[in-house]
Amino acid sequence: MPLSEFQLIARYFSGLTAVGPTEGVVLGIGDDAAILRLPPGEDLVVSIDTLVSGVHFPASLSPRAIGHRALAVNLSDLAAMGARPMWFTLALTLPDANEPWLAGFAEGLGQLAHRAGIALVGGDTTRGPLSITIQVHGVATPDAALRRDGARLGDELWVTGRPGLAALGLRLLQSGARENDPACAAFLWPEPRVAMGRALLGLATAAIDVSDGLLADAGHIAERSGCGVEIDAACLPLEAELAVLSREDALALCLTGGDDYELCFTAPATAAALIESAAENLGLPCRRIGRVVEGSGARCAGFRPARTGFQHFGASIDA
Amino acid sequence: MPLSEFQLIARYFSGLTAVGPTEGVVLGIGDDAAILRLPPGEDLVVSIDTLVSGVHFPASLSPRAIGHRALAVNLSDLAAMGARPMWFTLALTLPDANEPWLAGFAEGLGQLAHRAGIALVGGDTTRGPLSITIQVHGVATPDAALRRDGARLGDELWVTGRPGLAALGLRLLQSGARENDPACAAFLWPEPRVAMGRALLGLATAAIDVSDGLLADAGHIAERSGCGVEIDAACLPLEAELAVLSREDALALCLTGGDDYELCFTAPATAAALIESAAENLGLPCRRIGRVVEGSGARCAGFRPARTGFQHFGASIDA
Repeated sequence: MPLSEFQLIARYFSGLTAVGPTEGVVLGIGDDAAILRLPPGEDLVVSIDTLVSGVHFPASLSPRAIGHRALAVNLSDLAAMGARPMWFTLALTLPDANEPWLAGFAEGLGQLAHRAGIALVGGDTTRGPLSITIQVHGVATPDAALRRDGARLGDELWVTGRPGLAALGLRLLQSGARENDPACAAFLWPEPRVAMGRALLGLATAAIDVSDGLLADAGHIAERSGCGVEIDAACLPLEAELAVLSREDALALCLTGGDDYELCFTAPATAAALIESAAENLGLPCRRIGRVVEGSGARCAGFRPARTGFQHFGASIDA
Repeated sequence: MPLSEFQLIARYFSGLTAVGPTEGVVLGIGDDAAILRLPPGEDLVVSIDTLVSGVHFPASLSPRAIGHRALAVNLSDLAAMGARPMWFTLALTLPDANEPWLAGFAEGLGQLAHRAGIALVGGDTTRGPLSITIQVHGVATPDAALRRDGARLGDELWVTGRPGLAALGLRLLQSGARENDPACAAFLWPEPRVAMGRALLGLATAAIDVSDGLLADAGHIAERSGCGVEIDAACLPLEAELAVLSREDALALCLTGGDDYELCFTAPATAAALIESAAENLGLPCRRIGRVVEGSGARCAGFRPARTGFQHFGASIDA
């Protein structure tokens, strides 16, 4: 593949630097490094994630959905910190410079970047098996960011959205369902809960994004906070699409299905009204599903999972 | 591959967070994102690069050399900006959790990280074909960083080290030479010129790191600065190892060999004595090899390259 094909690729992404704000971009694409200026007194919040074709998404996924997904899973990490998205970098490894693929990928990536107000400031394109690494950069006021380690005994446990719906969607897609089915759409177009994360600043005591399954990720809060977490099966959102399944199957998907990209968080009971009001303002379902208890780990009374979380082949070194 | 193998991987890298300083690390590995605090008033300088096995390094390269290389090529970008290295993130894609490989990789990476004073603050490990993406984060005083676009007519052109030596080393390695041969060592253990980059602040008008070949990278300075660059073949460091080659071959390696990771920069003649003194203090060869002229592009009188730069399969979207 001649170099010129990759210079061509650059054109698809150069446009993304103009999409969204360029706040704080002193020097963007075109030098050895980008120079970025944080708002005075703010901390930098960074997260990096790789998606490998056939591992983190089906090889058949549309390039537009892949572009969306690659940024969404990273923005979801910023959401879980309550950080404000600012900039991202893109390291893209491709088997060849397929123009229709690139156009679709850049469109999916660009549309989400525009909505999230995050600008592309640098990157690298290389030849190899399809894989996308994105690093997102956000900002947060010192000591205000949401972490996994702040849950306190007696706090209530919450979750946004419909955990399990994306896992159901993947199952339906694999058996030939249409992409506009609500469950399929939940898998294909995960919506990072950035605004909700920011609304939770000062309200939530701990937060995590649900990517490996609700039970496993609630368990990470428990582990880092030195407590236990108890989920009440009766409070889980198993209605609508999940309601057609057996109760056991619906519970398993909700508690251990992956790829939800919802927020799971803890908060004192006194914050409940403000949390409900924030979620309502954003049109986002959000409900109390349990509480922080003594002990360790996360459990759901009456449910014994065959597996405790979504088995990605890879695991974050964060885990 | 069970998840536990990747949890095991995490152990190799968790150690690196303790290597080197942890200045500014508010929250490191173990949450959805890292929280970093920049020195007040400093700008953030970031660069991301992917190395794919068989594309950016021979698949036979030792894991220790791969770990070194993955960080070195990124630090080289910070060096070219004159930035101070602070933190890095690592996205590692591996076919399997091979422990001897991981130990070697972590050792090579960790030794350079320690010397450069840069701390690992986050990352992601995934299963797939071997590929390493690192993002480095440095800091620089506003308006002080070296860029590609500041070269001025009449400036002198400089280069550090021995461009071409690494390309010769790769050639020798491929024909069975020993790794402790000086040329082989230049390829295997590129040394990012971080201290020299910082010494050039206030002296150099433009800088770039030489990764794609001296002529091509000098050409990037010319392009971004809106001028031409003329290299004087008689001034190039073609002695010692390169001297055994034909003059034509030595010139070709020096001007178009890749993987040098030296600094090429421009500076006014009035800065020459200070530059020579800085290089001498660092024990780093550094010489004037040409000048900034009217026109466009980079050329070397009396040399007509068969190719103008190292043909990576991939090209940075920076390019």
